[in-house]
This record gives sequence, C-alpha cells and structure tokens, in this order.
Amino acid sequence: MATHTFHPTRYYSTFGSHAPVLRIAPGDTVITTTVDARGLDAREEQLSAGVNPQTGPFYIEGAEPGDTLVVHLEHLYPNRNTGWSSTILAPHVVDPWAVPDIPERMDGRWRFDRDAGTATLLEPETPLGAWVLPLAPMLGCLGVAPDGGEAISSATCGPHGGNMDYRGFRAGVTAYFPVFVPGALFFVGDGHAVQGAGEIAGTGIETSFDVRFKVDLRKGQRICWPRGQDEGFIFTTGNARPLDQAAQHATTEMIRWLQEDYGLDARAVGILLGQGVEYEVGNFFDPDYTMVCKVAKSFL
Amino acid sequence: MATHTFHPTRYYSTFGSHAPVLRIAPGDTVITTTVDARGLDAREEQLSAGVNPQTGPFYIEGAEPGDTLVVHLEHLYPNRNTGWSSTILAPHVVDPWAVPDIPERMDGRWRFDRDAGTATLLEPETPLGAWVLPLAPMLGCLGVAPDGGEAISSATCGPHGGNMDYRGFRAGVTAYFPVFVPGALFFVGDGHAVQGAGEIAGTGIETSFDVRFKVDLRKGQRICWPRGQDEGFIFTTGNARPLDQAAQHATTEMIRWLQEDYGLDARAVGILLGQGVEYEVGNFFDPDYTMVCKVAKSFL
Amino acid sequence: MATHTFHPTRYYSTFGSHAPVLRIAPGDTVITTTVDARGLDAREEQLSAGVNPQTGPFYIEGAEPGDTLVVHLEHLYPNRNTGWSSTILAPHVVDPWAVPDIPERMDGRWRFDRDAGTATLLEPETPLGAWVLPLAPMLGCLGVAPDGGEAISSATCGPHGGNMDYRGFRAGVTAYFPVFVPGALFFVGDGHAVQGAGEIAGTGIETSFDVRFKVDLRKGQRICWPRGQDEGFIFTTGNARPLDQAAQHATTEMIRWLQEDYGLDARAVGILLGQGVEYEVGNFFDPDYTMVCKVAKSFL
Amino acid sequence: MATHTFHPTRYYSTFGSHAPVLRIAPGDTVITTTVDARGLDAREEQLSAGVNPQTGPFYIEGAEPGDTLVVHLEHLYPNRNTGWSSTILAPHVVDPWAVPDIPERMDGRWRFDRDAGTATLLEPETPLGAWVLPLAPMLGCLGVAPDGGEAISSATCGPHGGNMDYRGFRAGVTAYFPVFVPGALFFVGDGHAVQGAGEIAGTGIETSFDVRFKVDLRKGQRICWPRGQDEGFIFTTGNARPLDQAAQHATTEMIRWLQEDYGLDARAVGILLGQGVEYEVGNFFDPDYTMVCKVAKSFL
Repeated sequence: MATHTFHPTRYYSTFGSHAPVLRIAPGDTVITTTVDARGLDAREEQLSAGVNPQTGPFYIEGAEPGDTLVVHLEHLYPNRNTGWSSTILAPHVVDPWAVPDIPERMDGRWRFDRDAGTATLLEPETPLGAWVLPLAPMLGCLGVAPDGGEAISSATCGPHGGNMDYRGFRAGVTAYFPVFVPGALFFVGDGHAVQGAGEIAGTGIETSFDVRFKVDLRKGQRICWPRGQDEGFIFTTGNARPLDQAAQHATTEMIRWLQEDYGLDARAVGILLGQGVEYEVGNFFDPDYTMVCKVAKSFL
Repeated sequence: MATHTFHPTRYYSTFGSHAPVLRIAPGDTVITTTVDARGLDAREEQLSAGVNPQTGPFYIEGAEPGDTLVVHLEHLYPNRNTGWSSTILAPHVVDPWAVPDIPERMDGRWRFDRDAGTATLLEPETPLGAWVLPLAPMLGCLGVAPDGGEAISSATCGPHGGNMDYRGFRAGVTAYFPVFVPGALFFVGDGHAVQGAGEIAGTGIETSFDVRFKVDLRKGQRICWPRGQDEGFIFTTGNARPLDQAAQHATTEMIRWLQEDYGLDARAVGILLGQGVEYEVGNFFDPDYTMVCKVAKSFL
Repeated sequence: MATHTFHPTRYYSTFGSHAPVLRIAPGDTVITTTVDARGLDAREEQLSAGVNPQTGPFYIEGAEPGDTLVVHLEHLYPNRNTGWSSTILAPHVVDPWAVPDIPERMDGRWRFDRDAGTATLLEPETPLGAWVLPLAPMLGCLGVAPDGGEAISSATCGPHGGNMDYRGFRAGVTAYFPVFVPGALFFVGDGHAVQGAGEIAGTGIETSFDVRFKVDLRKGQRICWPRGQDEGFIFTTGNARPLDQAAQHATTEMIRWLQEDYGLDARAVGILLGQGVEYEVGNFFDPDYTMVCKVAKSFL
Repeated sequence: MATHTFHPTRYYSTFGSHAPVLRIAPGDTVITTTVDARGLDAREEQLSAGVNPQTGPFYIEGAEPGDTLVVHLEHLYPNRNTGWSSTILAPHVVDPWAVPDIPERMDGRWRFDRDAGTATLLEPETPLGAWVLPLAPMLGCLGVAPDGGEAISSATCGPHGGNMDYRGFRAGVTAYFPVFVPGALFFVGDGHAVQGAGEIAGTGIETSFDVRFKVDLRKGQRICWPRGQDEGFIFTTGNARPLDQAAQHATTEMIRWLQEDYGLDARAVGILLGQGVEYEVGNFFDPDYTMVCKVAKSFL
C-alpha cells in the first residue's frame, strides 16, 4: 500500500507495450503530473512533441491478461493557471453543407482561479466577453496497453481505453480496464479543466494536471471495454464509429456486467435497461467515438 | 385564448395533411387524450389498429409555411392505472454477435399508483421482482405535417418531429416545430409513463394519457428541426441515421439558434458549444434516430 | 396483353396512394414519357414544379398487398437532345475538412447525339473540354406506393423503391417490387442519360425519357425490398443510411431470395455469398442511400 | 535492379516498425511466400500463431516520410492445393433481426486445380455440391508501417493499408502507399484464392501464396491513402467505418489525385466524378471497412 511520487521525464503518444516507468503493486497510490495535449507542463515548458503525450506506463505487479485493472481517480486538478482551447467546431459535427461557415481555427486562451474553481476566457474577443466557467477537471486519456501487440495513438481510443474524452472520468470515479499484457501498463494524460460533451471543438480547456490515483486488481475477471462507477451510477464505454456502434459496444458491456455481477438474467436486463438506461456522449471527435451507457445504482 | 376540450374519435398513424379535427387559434389551450401505442384508451378499449395512433391534427389559424409553431406542454399524465412494455432490447442496440442471446419477446405488465407517482412491474417474474419506478410521463410522438406533401409513419421521425421518444418532451417544456403546411397540423400521441433513454427496448411503459397543451405562433420565424426549452436548457433535435447524422442536424440547428436569437457569431458559438454543449439520446430505435443538443440557459 | 400509350398530364413528387392515372392488367405494356428532375419535357417545357416529378401511378388490376409486382423495363431513352447536370460533388461524399474546397454550384449543359448514342459536355468550360460519354440511359426513380399510408418524397427511397439512382435499372432489366396497396400504384421518373455510381454530384445527366415497360404479377409472393435481374445477375436493393445498413438490407433480401427460390439452405447461402457476392453503390446522395447486392446467374 | 528470393522465418501480426527482414532498393524485385490467415504454409505446417501473419517488413532504401512507395504485384498464386473458408456470413452484414438465423460456424474445405485454375468445394455438404469457382488470387493484406509510432493489427486497416481485402489487389496491379517511416517497411500476407466482395463471410478461400513484387519510389510525392491502377482504372482506397466514411476518404483521395496529376480543377473533377465514378466494396468485415473509388483510364 505504498504511495509513489513519480516525476515523468518522458512521454508516449501511443498506448503500447513501452518500457514501464514505474512498477507498482495493487493497493499502491501514485502521485504524478500530466502535460497538456501539446506537451506543456506546469511552467508551460514543452516537454514532448507528440499529441496527447501520456504519463506512464505504470506496470502493476501481478496483472495478467484476463484480469481487470481498477483505478481510483482520487485527485485531478490543473497545476497551472492557464489553459487553451480550440474556438471552432469540428467539421464532422455539423451538417456537411454548413462546414464552409466554420471560421478559421485559432486558439482560445483561458485563465484559471484555482481557489475559486473557475476558468475565464481571455481571448479571442467575442460576444461572450470574459466568459466564466466552473472548473470540472477530467482526464481526456487513460487506459492500458492494447491487445495483440498493437500500439494505438493517444489521439484515438479502443477496448484499451485511450482518448475517450468522457467528462465522467473525474476525481471520485473508479475506472476499470481489461488487462491485455503482463503488468497492464497504465497511462494517463490529456487533462481538461473544462470540456463540453463530445469534445466537439476537438479540445477541452487544455492544461497540465496534478494527478493522484490508486490501483487495484481483480484477478481472473475479464471485461471487454472500460467501465467505471461514481456515487450514483455504474457505466460502460464503447469506442468505435459510428456513434451507433460505440453505443452497441457500451450497451453489450453493460448487459454483461448486469448479468455477471448483479444476478440479472437476460429478460431482467431487458426490462431494466429498457426503462432505466441512460447514455452520454464521450468523444465525438476522434477517429473512434465514445458512447457511455449508464445505470443508476438506485436501480441495482 | 379559448380552452378546447377535445374528445378524439379517430386517430392517424401518419403525420400528414389529414383533415383537421379541430381548428384553434394561437393562444388557445387544448385538453385532450391520447391512446397508447396499440390504440388502447383509458378503459383499455382498442380504438385504433395502427401503430402509435395520433390525436389530431389540430389546425392552428394563421400558421403558414415558414412560421414556427410553439407548443407549451402543460399537463401529461396517464389516465389509467396500467401500462405495458417490451421486455427485451432491440437487436440493433447490441453488438451483432450478441443478438442471439436476446430472449423471446413478451410483454411486461405494470401497475401505476398515480397519486404516489409510481409504476410497479407486475410481470414477468424476474430477479427484478416488483420493480418500482417513479412516473416520468412524456410524449413519444409530437409534431406537424411534413413538407412536400409527404405522409410519414408515426413509427419514425424527421424535420416535422414525429416519433422522437425524447424524455425531455414532458410537462413544463415548450416545444417548437417548423410549419410546412397551412395550419401546421399538430399531432400528439404515444405517451410513456416511464422510458429509458433511446427507447432501446422499443417501448417505454406504454399507456393512455390526459394531455393539455397551449399553442402559439412565431410568424415568419423559420426553424429547420424541432426545438424546445425547459427551466434549465434550450435544446434542438435531429432525426436521422446514424446517430452521428442526427447529432449533426441537432448541432447545426443549435448553431443557427445561437446565432439568430442570442447575438453570437460563429466563433463565439464554437467556444460556447465546444466547452458547454451537452447531448442526450432521444430515440435509438426508429428507422431514424433522435439526438438532442442542449445548452444550459445559465450560459446564455 | 394490351399496349397502352399514356400521355401524362400531371406528375407527383411523392410515392403515395394517389388516384391512378391508368388501370392496366398483368401482361400489359405501357408506352409513356417522363419529364426530367426539374419537370421539363421533350420540348423543355416545365410541366411540373416539384423535384423528380413522377409519371403514374399505374394501377395494376389484381395486385394486392403481399404480391410482387414485376416490371420489365423494355425501352428507356432520352426524347430530346439536351441534358443538364450538377458540376460539383455533394458535400457529404468528401471528407468534412475538404468541403470548403467544393466550388459553387452551377449547371452543366450537355448535348446528345441520340443516333450515335453519346452525350457531349457543352458547358462549363473546364480542362475536360467537350467531354464525350456514351449514353447509358437509366431510371433514377421507380417504385410503388409505400406501406402504412405513407407518402414518401421522390427525392428519397425505401422498401417501396423510389429514388434509388441505380445504374442497373436500365432497358433489358426486370425489376420486382413489394405490393403494399391494392393496385400496387407504380410510378416512374427521373431519367438519366448517364450517371456515375452513387449520383455523387446529386444529379446524373438529367433529361426527359421515352419509356416502355411491361408489368406482371406474382400473386402471394412477398418480397421485402426491390429486386431485379438482367442477363448476368440477380440483384437486391437496400435503401437506408448509412451505406452499412443499406447493405444489410440488400444482403438479407438476397439471402431470402436464395433460400426461397433457389433451394439453398443457410449454410449454402453463406458459402455462395461469402465467395461469390458482389456489391454496387446505388445512390449515395439521398437521405436514404442505396446499396445493391448481386449474384452471378452462373453461380445459381 | 536486383531480384531477391526471400524465405521468411518469422511473421508479424501488426503493421508496425519491426526490424526489417530484408533491405531492398527501388527497382528491386522480391520473390517470396506468404502463409495463410492461420499461419499455415505450402506444406500446411503452422509457422505462426497470430491472425493474418505478414511476410516482411521489407526496408526500401531511400524511402522517407512524405514519399510514395510503388509496388508492382507481378505474381500471386496459391503454392498448395488446399484452402479453407468460413461458411457463414458475419452477423454485422445482415439485418440485426436476421442474425439468429445464421448457422454455427464451421470450416469449408476446398481443393485447387492450379493448372486448370479452379477451386472446388469439398465440404461441408450442401445443396451447392462440389461447387467449382475460377481461381482469382489476391492479397487480403498489404501495406506499410503506420504513422506516429502506431502498430496496427493485421486484422484491420488504415491509411497505411493493411487488411483491405480488396479483390483488385491482384497480379498485374500497381499499388501505392504513403511512406510514414524511413524505409517504408512493406508487408504482405493473407492470400485469397477466391473472395467475394466485402469478405462478408470473414474469409476468402484462405491459402498460402507464392508472391513476386517489384518496388519503386516516388520521392517527395505525398499521398494520404493507398492507391492503385490496373489496365483499365485508377483507384483509391479509404479505410474507416461506416462505409460512408470509407467512401469519403476514397473519394477525397481521388479528387486529390485528379487535381495533382491529371491537370483537372475542382469543377472538372466534379463533372468527371459526378458522371463517371465507380465504387467497389473492399472489406465489409474488419473494424475498419474499405471502399474503393475508381475512374476509368479512358476518361483521363
């Protein structure tokens, strides 16, 4: 049950079987940092050139293919007072005929009041003026090394997790990942101070983060897609295109969860989800989109 | 500002240019009823053979193509104590390889306590037992006659509205529809006492409703897709397949709304939606799916 | 076995249960004309204002829901020497980021040499110069009145056929349609002198046609989607979005055909289609796309 | 202009930056072999455990990111007399409600007469009997190491090529790939003696191949997706889901090709593709599907 403080010195832009930066045991806690999506750290120094540079991979002792990695997200918070964002919508989230109306891409600049918990728009000047938003810190990327020797860009996502851009991956949440390789090889990165659903501008308010998480292991429990839970809900994610297929993956994973862990048969699951399911849009930007299937704990 | 009490005697299973059942004026209120998705009324007598039989159409005096019809949903509530539902998920909402695990279709039976505001599962017997859900009445179908002389089945949806199965069409909400034909020709039906997001079982808890709504007109204000607002949000709907395209329609309609009515330019819209948008899944069952794009009024 | 020469005087822009313009018997032949997609006839007079105005509906005596309408396309040919076309690609057929590179829409003008069987580009002036194409006349639209009292725009398609824009609907082909209403109510229109696959510019080379077809009836044989055959192939069509779902519909209809009419069981169908199927893209433009599933007659 | 005869001793199941097995120069020819999709060689010995094991990677001297790798497929032919196949359709290529009708998966067995150029079905016994098909050898997989340090499973495809299962990658065709890493790192594998469009059974008739190809390099010519040409056509591929997006990628790549190499402006491209484009379905099975956009050389 050790606590490790880890200062990253290199970053990866793929989720793959890279040499571990730290070996930790189930029950251990890691205190570390992430750089922003362009590789800038707390002092706005660029430490990595790739997109969505990841901290890790962390090797979890004893993790083997077929297990489930449990990650308690204990603390996620900007470690600097500035963030940046896209200021235009991605062309694929609007009707094709409306694409030419999208203005040219430029950066938005934001200042955080970390005590008050707010982000304020500094520029560009628009009718929004100095728009103030409550901070809602979340991790755009988290996940493990994929199956089959693949190395998948941190710009997209899959059964291993990755760039899911789901606002539900915030402090207080427990995330679950399938283990595909020995040690699981866990990565985190791409912190967003705030993000709209779908990350439809292609960014949240991007910044560097302080991160604290604790890991655990469920030996021999195989899951197929990242899962999670918070105070009120259990949820599953599906990562694919189109959104329909992402929703199919998430729904099927939820069926599996309800049948295996909650004692429901197929018909009870049909009734429960039919009248009680909820969906959220994770990322609607990457090559593979993310849909989230949720069930209220009050129903279970 | 008359109040009309209308007792329907016939029902339509298409949204089309049928002969109006009642002519009303902007500002008028209508008190009426809807039968359930199989045509059963408050006494469980079958009054119509089609699917999702609609009450209406109501002709709104003065409504012309290019106007916007405003409908205040004032009261929606079951007018009997029984409901029925599907008990299995639609095959297209799960992974294709998982389809054979779906059990055979049978009806679920529910009893309402309308004072307490609950629905209780009577059968089938499953590990859920006598599952109790809070009533959350909503209209599965509402909309107007489509453009171009079309008559569209009440089993699906489009720019005219129709079978959107969005839980947000509940009492207290104001809905907006494009007017395509003189009089707009407004229909309502397919009440759900409760419904999970997406209506992924193919039904909510289906029952007959008492309905009260008030209409208004925005002359010369053209919208392209159904819109709505409640206490906290403005929202737009898009109806298409796949979900991606439905989301494109809804997002594009929201852009239009923000630019035309809220004084935002394209870049301000990009920033606002990028960091503040929310999505909900309306129907994930019909030939055309429904996605809902929402913006908190606190941002406007 | 009568031959009817029919001069249309009105046109419909929906496939719906309109009053028949002519009653014909199985075995009868119809000689008629179609106007172009903008309603222009052989003399370039505009006879109808709608999009894709249809000739018909023709009432086939004895046709009842559950039957199959057989249509032999015997002759299809431009009846004037001019055609027009779009000169730009539809925004939804290119990558969203590439949409702003599409130039402004203008018409292309073409002249036909009907004896030589060629179309020559007259304008605009482009590096293509006076591009010459062989005429390959086909019907963009053909189909019957839909099920359930619907009236569906001739700008799109469905189980009833409609605007499928499939190059395979040419002279010499036999087409099959499900009958949904008494008399079937058959429509034709939207002739293309030439058309690229998918009609990705939104038009073929649009012109008015002379049309001759012969009808027949298969009593009590129910099909679900339009089918066809020519010298070399049998084919099925699916109309939906995305292309994936259109392909699912077409493939499922082909499975049904092979099992019902060719004595194959499910495994034989799996082997035959697995190693012998072909696909063509019908329309990749309408709200609902068209995919065509084909099997060579040499395999049957 | 050397000719290398290469006997593979190890195989990869990802397209990634693996250590080259051979270094060759532009203009060189390689004579080699591929194992079948389960790793069986000419003697039906299993040499590799993964799916679609690839021969390579071949390092092409002088190839650098931003170049185009040219591969002339000179000879592709089974090097044994046996092949195997799936005998059922993939569940995602039929309507979801029809999935339960798919029989259980079993292997089909085929015998080749390589002189006569035929494949004959040996088992299972079905109404097809001893079905005989002409051999039409093609490579299911070919491509290069992906961009950004990714390693992508040979079960799927992307901008680097991979498992595209396009019947057009046959002897006599020249294929083009973007170069993302020094040396390009070219792979080949997954030979099909015969394959229906889309590989909708999940396999062709799988067997081991003799392969001969010659490489070339176009320095400084950047392409975005695999391209090819044969006697009659130039073609581009797009790899994505749904088929719509794959078609968007392929069409956009064709636009680029026509504008850069054939002197056409955007409007000429619109006219040419609008009335002259063709599409073929590559794979309709992998996580990412393949669509092929074709233009007849007679038009250029």
